[in-house]
Amino acid sequence: MLEEIEFVKPEDIEARSMELIEKELDGRTWPEPEALVIKRCIHTSADFDYADQLYFSPGAVSRALKLLKDGAHIITDTKMAAAGINKKRLAALGGQVHCFMDDPEVAREAKERGITRSAVCMERGSQIPGTPIFAIGNAPTALIRLYELLREGKVHPGLIIGVPVGFVNVVESKELIIRTDAACIVARGRKGGSNIAAAICNALIYQCK
Amino acid sequence: MLEEIEFVKPEDIEARSMELIEKELDGRTWPEPEALVIKRCIHTSADFDYADQLYFSPGAVSRALKLLKDGAHIITDTKMAAAGINKKRLAALGGQVHCFMDDPEVAREAKERGITRSAVCMERGSQIPGTPIFAIGNAPTALIRLYELLREGKVHPGLIIGVPVGFVNVVESKELIIRTDAACIVARGRKGGSNIAAAICNALIYQCK
Repeated sequence: MLEEIEFVKPEDIEARSMELIEKELDGRTWPEPEALVIKRCIHTSADFDYADQLYFSPGAVSRALKLLKDGAHIITDTKMAAAGINKKRLAALGGQVHCFMDDPEVAREAKERGITRSAVCMERGSQIPGTPIFAIGNAPTALIRLYELLREGKVHPGLIIGVPVGFVNVVESKELIIRTDAACIVARGRKGGSNIAAAICNALIYQCK
Repeated sequence: MLEEIEFVKPEDIEARSMELIEKELDGRTWPEPEALVIKRCIHTSADFDYADQLYFSPGAVSRALKLLKDGAHIITDTKMAAAGINKKRLAALGGQVHCFMDDPEVAREAKERGITRSAVCMERGSQIPGTPIFAIGNAPTALIRLYELLREGKVHPGLIIGVPVGFVNVVESKELIIRTDAACIVARGRKGGSNIAAAICNALIYQCK
């Protein structure tokens, strides 16, 4: 049975995967910076739906690359995305990852106000100085709170990565963000997740040479 | 635009999601312990493919629940899965999560032997006493190394959660594990990931009241 396994050197596995993804995309093309984001989402999920569902606001990727090269921080609503983002490479650019989900004060405040912890985390994130990137992989309520803060002029994100996953208000919250003026990368529809949020962050970070 | 958002209390979001998933499964049924695993995978991915692709070896779930109630540890090949597993609830049962991916010794040994860090992690995991659960969400090479260790009688897993994602040896490595005598839960095909590994662990942990 082991003979069905093809030996591929560890350092070659990713390149081989990307070749196979490219082949299956069957000639579909995007500008290189967007293509690298789309292919990394497919690589992390084996789900080709991302080729159709990823929305990029005009200039979003080039703006994100410039910000990351200038040391932009990343704020995320999920510990899994925080674990998956390449923090060493981000730190080399001068950035850090922030996730406030484990802060007991956030939990207390969310309970008191009857809102989600993710929504409170966005308020905390809005206080990070500079022009940070918000990477939302879990909670539509985080995107909805970001939308409200944007309207109130209380948050100035450099980019919103809007890829929560699920069934309650997920589709709607993503469309809300697309309709704002904020630069965004959004996985339309129900799909997304922490893995997709981390994959998009990493696809951007790896383009900052 | 905000008027399209339906207000759902934070504590009700998961139950509402599960209702919607159930509705869309349109009468398909499984024994309750397996159904809870399948539905949590769909909840975490919005991907109904898991209803078709999840394979349970006979008695795998009931065995896993017994082990977890007895304090079984969980070993995973991915930091994202480690971040996503409910460690507080696991600790209440007496278990811990182990992930060796960040150990510099693992990186050194993997490089020296020309194998993946994930494969070395499985060897480390095989030294954990008791009957642990292996949750593989990233690397097919981890599953392949587990298969070899099983054949050599060098590892005694209580359950293997085999849900790596990707394009190189992923499908084959999962079929290898299914053909062993080990209790397993496997996402057949290319799909899976850290989020699915964590979701399956949590679906099991939450059944241990």
